[in-house]
Amino acid sequence: MSTADIDIAGCRYVVLSGGVGGAKLAQGLSLCRPAEELLVVGNIGDDFEHWGLHISPDLDTLMYTLAGVANPELGWGRAAETWHVLEAVSELGGETWFRLGDRDLAVHIERSMRLKTGAPLSLVTVALCRAFGVSLLILPPTDDRVRTIVETPGGPLDFQTYFVRDRCEPVITGLRYEGASEAALLPAVITVLEDPELKAVILCPSNPFLSLDPILATADLRSRLQRCKVPVVAVSPMIGSRAFKGPTTKIMAELGYEASTLSIARYYADILDGYVIDGADHHVSRQIEDLDIRVEVTATLMETLDQKLNLAADVVAFSETMQR
Amino acid sequence: MSTADIDIAGCRYVVLSGGVGGAKLAQGLSLCRPAEELLVVGNIGDDFEHWGLHISPDLDTLMYTLAGVANPELGWGRAAETWHVLEAVSELGGETWFRLGDRDLAVHIERSMRLKTGAPLSLVTVALCRAFGVSLLILPPTDDRVRTIVETPGGPLDFQTYFVRDRCEPVITGLRYEGASEAALLPAVITVLEDPELKAVILCPSNPFLSLDPILATADLRSRLQRCKVPVVAVSPMIGSRAFKGPTTKIMAELGYEASTLSIARYYADILDGYVIDGADHHVSRQIEDLDIRVEVTATLMETLDQKLNLAADVVAFSETMQR
Repeated sequence: MSTADIDIAGCRYVVLSGGVGGAKLAQGLSLCRPAEELLVVGNIGDDFEHWGLHISPDLDTLMYTLAGVANPELGWGRAAETWHVLEAVSELGGETWFRLGDRDLAVHIERSMRLKTGAPLSLVTVALCRAFGVSLLILPPTDDRVRTIVETPGGPLDFQTYFVRDRCEPVITGLRYEGASEAALLPAVITVLEDPELKAVILCPSNPFLSLDPILATADLRSRLQRCKVPVVAVSPMIGSRAFKGPTTKIMAELGYEASTLSIARYYADILDGYVIDGADHHVSRQIEDLDIRVEVTATLMETLDQKLNLAADVVAFSETMQR
Repeated sequence: MSTADIDIAGCRYVVLSGGVGGAKLAQGLSLCRPAEELLVVGNIGDDFEHWGLHISPDLDTLMYTLAGVANPELGWGRAAETWHVLEAVSELGGETWFRLGDRDLAVHIERSMRLKTGAPLSLVTVALCRAFGVSLLILPPTDDRVRTIVETPGGPLDFQTYFVRDRCEPVITGLRYEGASEAALLPAVITVLEDPELKAVILCPSNPFLSLDPILATADLRSRLQRCKVPVVAVSPMIGSRAFKGPTTKIMAELGYEASTLSIARYYADILDGYVIDGADHHVSRQIEDLDIRVEVTATLMETLDQKLNLAADVVAFSETMQR
């Protein structure tokens, strides 16, 4: 199979997603739209090598969530997980700051083996998703290497070193997406974005700097979305200016942005046609509309399947009210 | 730590060993001699890369056996083993012909990580043995790459492909030890072999072609043993011309050797001063002595700790009756 064989027939929505929050919306979308209508482009800026293996945390979170095998307690990794390898590595004094479960590890082994034979990440992702019974298409934005580098007063850190090992404690003075500008956007993504049948591009409620920007920086996808002929709609990752999850608030403050739904709307004003915000943020609707962005106020919390489905249906319906 | 720091003070016996059979004698020796007197040089011709990891089956069998954590049922791998990663890799359609248990896998991960940082195999082996509480020194013969290649009518096979995947079924038309002649013998091994305090070199009851020859071929260790100033004593891997374990009989026949204790004595006649054989083979004692090799007839079966200890004590006592 070559990348030209990736089946994109029938794609109507391009969904840009980071890990947990994005995966929830993608799951909601999979419940309200046919699988073939959805192309989920997952962040690979978080990818890294650990224990000699290639790990793609966000692609895996998407895959596990959509396969229904995500670990509900942890919020990452696989359900029904065991930790025998990690315990044994720990006994040997090895690196255990990145907690790899036994069944999760199998996915990294299999991905790494396939990559080593020369298969591109896109096809490996398609094959793994098929093995997990995931019917919608999850792809990286590129088969080239893109890595989020976190600049800190102590020097640059790999993303996972910053995020997991150092628990986001260092102050972020800047972010780089190494390899992003030289990377080639996946032909399948280009084709879908140029397809006259495409209906909308959806930005999931993911961290703008850590999850969406690495995708948007890839081969300047951001400019492509400015020129795109379909509406671009985002869901705010904040409720009442608090992030659902993760270090969004801390990072935005350190990067000199106000940590708020409005601030993120401003940050993406060049590409957004519509912005879905939570009721808790309804008071900034007018200010967002002043940016020439239409606003949909709804419930954006996604704890239950119903909440995911309802938000996804809202986003789709909202996108249908718009045109470029 | 550098290879020059490997602690060889007090070494009196160099023990050349393959996997299971050799590890049993090494364990016996560890019960009758102080740990610092023993340097076990393990075969690395079986080493290979699998799941992207460096696996050293014979070094591990030695380490697990001497640490008392070898799997008693399987005869390989670690005790109290689980198979969660293997099962999950199998579900993904991955390669599972080489059965890696979860706790065994941790060792391969840790070894591979350390090798990747540039540490030589000898130091990684020392560090792993320390983590397992193994007090005697286990070393590869070299830090260079040596690989046993099995020539078959269908073409050359990596050792593990032949041995595990193909279950020794292909006919062996020849054996090569890739890299052996260009490899540099470990300085620690050279130093011990030249030490005037050295008492003997012991060849374990391991397969001559698959386990001992890859060691003896390394930097022409075999010639070095011809010139060595201490007795070289071997234990036959056969009892009544049947191998203890493994495909010795089949392989010897395919390579044109009679599969017998006498045949192996002939094969090693250039280096052996003494040969320990089982009572079942006592009738060939005279023929072996005609090769200018002294013979010790004893019980060579090693199923219990007592049997291992007794055989090891016999070998040591026998070596003390000889000089070069």
